[in-house]
Amino acid sequence: MKAVLAFSGGLDTSVAIRILQEKYDCDVITVTVDVGQPKASIKEAEIKAKKLGVIKHYTIDAKAEFTREFLFPAIKANATYEGYPLGTALARPLIAVKTIEVAGKENAEAIAHGCTGKGNDQFRFEFTIRTKAPGLKIIAPIRDLNLTRKEEIEYAKEKGIPIQVDLNKPFSVDENLWSRSIEGGILEDPAIRPKETIYEWTISAEKAPDKPKIIEIKFERGVPVSLDGKKMAPVELIQVLRALAGKHGIGRIDIIENRIIGLKAREVYEAPAALTLITAHKQLESLVLTKDELKFKEVVDSTWSELTYKGLWFDPFKEDLDAYINKTQERVTGETTIKLFKGALLSLARSSPFALYAPEVVSFDVKSFDQREVAGMLKFHGFQAQLFESKRKKLKSKP
Amino acid sequence: MKAVLAFSGGLDTSVAIRILQEKYDCDVITVTVDVGQPKASIKEAEIKAKKLGVIKHYTIDAKAEFTREFLFPAIKANATYEGYPLGTALARPLIAVKTIEVAGKENAEAIAHGCTGKGNDQFRFEFTIRTKAPGLKIIAPIRDLNLTRKEEIEYAKEKGIPIQVDLNKPFSVDENLWSRSIEGGILEDPAIRPKETIYEWTISAEKAPDKPKIIEIKFERGVPVSLDGKKMAPVELIQVLRALAGKHGIGRIDIIENRIIGLKAREVYEAPAALTLITAHKQLESLVLTKDELKFKEVVDSTWSELTYKGLWFDPFKEDLDAYINKTQERVTGETTIKLFKGALLSLARSSPFALYAPEVVSFDVKSFDQREVAGMLKFHGFQAQLFESKRKKLKSKP
Amino acid sequence: MKAVLAFSGGLDTSVAIRILQEKYDCDVITVTVDVGQPKASIKEAEIKAKKLGVIKHYTIDAKAEFTREFLFPAIKANATYEGYPLGTALARPLIAVKTIEVAGKENAEAIAHGCTGKGNDQFRFEFTIRTKAPGLKIIAPIRDLNLTRKEEIEYAKEKGIPIQVDLNKPFSVDENLWSRSIEGGILEDPAIRPKETIYEWTISAEKAPDKPKIIEIKFERGVPVSLDGKKMAPVELIQVLRALAGKHGIGRIDIIENRIIGLKAREVYEAPAALTLITAHKQLESLVLTKDELKFKEVVDSTWSELTYKGLWFDPFKEDLDAYINKTQERVTGETTIKLFKGALLSLARSSPFALYAPEVVSFDVKSFDQREVAGMLKFHGFQAQLFESKRKKLKSKP
Amino acid sequence: MKAVLAFSGGLDTSVAIRILQEKYDCDVITVTVDVGQPKASIKEAEIKAKKLGVIKHYTIDAKAEFTREFLFPAIKANATYEGYPLGTALARPLIAVKTIEVAGKENAEAIAHGCTGKGNDQFRFEFTIRTKAPGLKIIAPIRDLNLTRKEEIEYAKEKGIPIQVDLNKPFSVDENLWSRSIEGGILEDPAIRPKETIYEWTISAEKAPDKPKIIEIKFERGVPVSLDGKKMAPVELIQVLRALAGKHGIGRIDIIENRIIGLKAREVYEAPAALTLITAHKQLESLVLTKDELKFKEVVDSTWSELTYKGLWFDPFKEDLDAYINKTQERVTGETTIKLFKGALLSLARSSPFALYAPEVVSFDVKSFDQREVAGMLKFHGFQAQLFESKRKKLKSKP
Repeated sequence: MKAVLAFSGGLDTSVAIRILQEKYDCDVITVTVDVGQPKASIKEAEIKAKKLGVIKHYTIDAKAEFTREFLFPAIKANATYEGYPLGTALARPLIAVKTIEVAGKENAEAIAHGCTGKGNDQFRFEFTIRTKAPGLKIIAPIRDLNLTRKEEIEYAKEKGIPIQVDLNKPFSVDENLWSRSIEGGILEDPAIRPKETIYEWTISAEKAPDKPKIIEIKFERGVPVSLDGKKMAPVELIQVLRALAGKHGIGRIDIIENRIIGLKAREVYEAPAALTLITAHKQLESLVLTKDELKFKEVVDSTWSELTYKGLWFDPFKEDLDAYINKTQERVTGETTIKLFKGALLSLARSSPFALYAPEVVSFDVKSFDQREVAGMLKFHGFQAQLFESKRKKLKSKP
Repeated sequence: MKAVLAFSGGLDTSVAIRILQEKYDCDVITVTVDVGQPKASIKEAEIKAKKLGVIKHYTIDAKAEFTREFLFPAIKANATYEGYPLGTALARPLIAVKTIEVAGKENAEAIAHGCTGKGNDQFRFEFTIRTKAPGLKIIAPIRDLNLTRKEEIEYAKEKGIPIQVDLNKPFSVDENLWSRSIEGGILEDPAIRPKETIYEWTISAEKAPDKPKIIEIKFERGVPVSLDGKKMAPVELIQVLRALAGKHGIGRIDIIENRIIGLKAREVYEAPAALTLITAHKQLESLVLTKDELKFKEVVDSTWSELTYKGLWFDPFKEDLDAYINKTQERVTGETTIKLFKGALLSLARSSPFALYAPEVVSFDVKSFDQREVAGMLKFHGFQAQLFESKRKKLKSKP
Repeated sequence: MKAVLAFSGGLDTSVAIRILQEKYDCDVITVTVDVGQPKASIKEAEIKAKKLGVIKHYTIDAKAEFTREFLFPAIKANATYEGYPLGTALARPLIAVKTIEVAGKENAEAIAHGCTGKGNDQFRFEFTIRTKAPGLKIIAPIRDLNLTRKEEIEYAKEKGIPIQVDLNKPFSVDENLWSRSIEGGILEDPAIRPKETIYEWTISAEKAPDKPKIIEIKFERGVPVSLDGKKMAPVELIQVLRALAGKHGIGRIDIIENRIIGLKAREVYEAPAALTLITAHKQLESLVLTKDELKFKEVVDSTWSELTYKGLWFDPFKEDLDAYINKTQERVTGETTIKLFKGALLSLARSSPFALYAPEVVSFDVKSFDQREVAGMLKFHGFQAQLFESKRKKLKSKP
Repeated sequence: MKAVLAFSGGLDTSVAIRILQEKYDCDVITVTVDVGQPKASIKEAEIKAKKLGVIKHYTIDAKAEFTREFLFPAIKANATYEGYPLGTALARPLIAVKTIEVAGKENAEAIAHGCTGKGNDQFRFEFTIRTKAPGLKIIAPIRDLNLTRKEEIEYAKEKGIPIQVDLNKPFSVDENLWSRSIEGGILEDPAIRPKETIYEWTISAEKAPDKPKIIEIKFERGVPVSLDGKKMAPVELIQVLRALAGKHGIGRIDIIENRIIGLKAREVYEAPAALTLITAHKQLESLVLTKDELKFKEVVDSTWSELTYKGLWFDPFKEDLDAYINKTQERVTGETTIKLFKGALLSLARSSPFALYAPEVVSFDVKSFDQREVAGMLKFHGFQAQLFESKRKKLKSKP
């Protein structure tokens, strides 16, 4: 049987190649999708794949598509799930789609992934495969054999699978353009303070520059188009901003997260560009959307984010939510000024041609409307509550 | 007619005294409620009241009641409205109630306030008065005469009313234990960056100490009881934390806010203790409440906050929301560790006897559950979306 | 001054003509917009307008536009506000727009309406005018003179204004294609049972035919296109269905409604076609939309309905909600079978090419999935609640 | 091993006894919990249990507890899930708890249930057992052996298990005080019209009495206490009302339901008392709760209902929701008048000492408030939308 494996080059997927070959009797084709992880890791995956005897290896650069089709919608949705800007969750459907495409081209009968049975990624991969390629068999070798990490390491040693297990880094990392996730081991205990060494994208606030950086981000119809007046292509803008904000200590996230199957775990992320862009985007929205639009969009955004976290990217419900979001974004055009300094992100100013700001009415100093006209409104403010209180009093005073 | 005026000592209420005396022919009694504003301003109000010929002046210390009955419920509700932790909104109902009590004691026929017709406070004062003392007449002299700030200043000069109008500070300030609001004038324009000089409670991040401060806050049933292991009375805890967090540059808020009558305006606040306590409280909640409880509580909290913003503190609806919130808070007991550094607030750790954290299940390294059992769940993940896609394909492929 | 008055021919607007002429010194142009009210009443309005000396009268047939642009979106949104299908609320923005168009054509400076200061319609008219024609002056003669109904009747008699005030019908009626509203007088008391004589569109259930009528309604993309297999134009379909359902006693509504300014009142409506179509439409949606889509659409629908009730038809927020709704309606195609009988409406069957119904999985009698696969899912069902209970027990058992 | 089986006497649980004995080598104890199912069926269960050689059989009358602790909270929550008033879902947690109690008394090691792997009940039973008795083993014999109904019938014949399988009734029925569920077989197809013969609690509308019945239900703090002025005990009130409303053809429900694992199926229910009481209860709420309370309670009620549907009765989240609901119900005291006639339920009148109805303000005929005072409010109605439109126009007209 020919099986296409979504291959990161890490422990799980490396072990998976050998299991697929030996236990499932598969010819394995590997696919590494470049969504912004380090170049070295992509190269390493190629080398490892060959060494492990795959019949073919694909490296697919999907950075531009990832940014345009996944990260930009996430910005429009101010997407965070319990504080996490969803980097890994956003990449999984795209990796699955690219792997399915290879399976089609190669006439493979199965798709394989290296996810364990405890995590979120199995849900994201398999939903996409079941929805987009219901005819393909799905193989999850690590889960099927119920392997723990320790058992995987032993298996790798036994089978001569090259792995890099740094005993000083007993946690797993997933990295793409949008965020870097660090999870597992001691980190999962909510009561432990994470060590400085786990961070790579963000400098500690203490070591960040002593001079703040003030930046201006321009948005058009909800997506960023320029930084400090300089137009940039989507991928570039995110890469530049990630480096810049990370340098100022921006982007560390340390939260308790509710995973899909209902477990709570501490999760640590680095997401300098994501946090900066979402903060800037929200500021602009607060200027151009009406109060009702903003309030309802919070609900839509949070629903969108949970759907994405669960990997239900290709659910028709997401198309409905996108329709709402896209309609609101038609006016989200303008500029926001943000201060980056030693781990703190502060909005300083924002402007837009669509700003719903009426200086001629709002100020205390102008006389454009007669204050007396508001008096009537006040009588009806909380009218039913006033009525309630009078009834309550009457009923209480009865003998 | 005898009228009791809620008196802050500022421009609006000082002018109001004289108008009440001259245009409404009132004997004026003034009430200054101490909710944590500067002592000097309370003293000044007393002196001014006498000077302006009121027949009696009351100073009422309500700090403990304000903390226990208003700020602590706000912590339980993680209360913010569009980013604003509601300091002024929380104080208004209490000030109104205290003023009503004086009116009762003094057999006054009217209650007066100095609010203009553009702001939020008129709604908060008048709703409380109409609900709690429907028999009392309400007088709003500034609004009734449709005065602008400029006209008020002229009137004050003409009538010899002592006012402190610092031409370098063309904005109005409201201050209590929970927050300091700075609004008006040029600040209202969302595109202008506020000057450093408007801040008094928070040092600029640049000038904050070069060493971070790590603090531990202990909560019992949703409210803070100790700081760094030291038990503190509610008022003291907030005052100490306000100074500490403010010293590290924590607590600046710069937002576009939707006022009650629907105007948007830039608002600037300082709220060091409020932001720190709400962050710490949320962290603890994320550890002890179930995912469903957390998600729904976000809706309850945001509804609670909007109700409070609108001044509908004594609405029966708030009692309903409080019932939900209080039930959840029974378990919000434990400790959170927070890092304060140059304007940035970072959660580092949290623990609780009620933590819904199951290390024996969550870790990749243990074998307490058989991963294969999850396989079945995966088939039904997004089942209807899978079905939808297959129908869509079938229909598309029809001739 | 030239003023264009939205003219129904009833008491309020007839009195308004004379006041506009005498107190406001206006040349009055009247506009009667045909949204499906009785033909006799349209004719009567024309005659009355001339008799009262207006300089010009317009009758505008807007039935097709009303159905297509207002009623069909309302069906897609399953629009009801507290049980009321919004007939009057849907007509007001259209009447206002048509009146504005006449004002433009006639170079009028003002638009007038006959609404009192207690009802909902003033909000609906004036919001549309302020939004669509901010340059026009708005005149509300009845409200400006603070007239009660009794005073209006006296004024009409005094001024020789022809009015039909049936002393046996001390309530006001508003009627269009979608619903007939009956309100006012004794009816407003929630404790009074309305008399049979107030109803005109619906027969009493007792007198309805003894044989049930089973109908089949076909929808395409969310809107009805045929009845019992017969294609019909939108207006015709609604008129036919209104008569048919009304004949079977369907469509009476008797509710407590919260008006815009916050007053509660009993309201009585007749809406045979509206209730039947919304019931049928919901049935079809329950078959083709996913569970998540349905649940969220309930929130969207209810928000849409409240917005429409408040007259905020031309709010950008409604465009956002419409985007969501329209996306979901792409699949709402199919047929529903409804039984009409003596006041009761019962869904009997529904079918659609997009039905998310999987007979091969759902039935107890087939073996297409292995039941054992569900066992794993069960362990995680309410997992956090299980954990909570075990913690609670442990803590309780402590000394 | 000693196992306690929740025993209804039907096919699934009868087959389960024998499997438990033969395949699991169990001593079986059976428990039949009386939640209002027919007396004959309880008697039959007793006889069958003995015949099948259980070591002990318990019949536990839980009708009063079921009504007080489950049905009354459901009334307060206006509990329906997609139109279904939740009878079976409400009974399952109670049956599980009673079965657990027997297991404790009898020192059993296991609890067994007869649910298949496709339905909802397995989730409801097992969650309660895992939460309330985590030490007990759970056995689900039908699911474990992956039996279809056909296979069960064959097994029963082979093993001499007495079963009543009426070939004319190829559907399964579950019945208790609150509702009667009819599901399975041909009924699951949404396009098929159910036959009249499936109904037992409700007469067809055509055969219902030709004279309507008007009833008055009195509620105290959210729960019904008397019918037509006659005080009744909770169980009696529900039984009397079920018979009465059923006689008038009230209570048939025919819907598409989304089951817990995500399958859609047509479900048919009869629930005469449930629908009547919920309708009456809602009417009363609409009179005494404020608009905001009502709107938010809809969300709470729907969340409560979904939680109950999923069997998460003992989730701490439900306790939170109950706290909200119970607070609102303090005022839900009063009377509602309902008309029952040939399948139609119509509210006619409602009254309460807490009614938020202000006749002195609402009527067109009184002059208690000056209509002109509302004029100011109108200017701010939809203010941001007005502003938006003016911006849009300006931007459009730019070259």
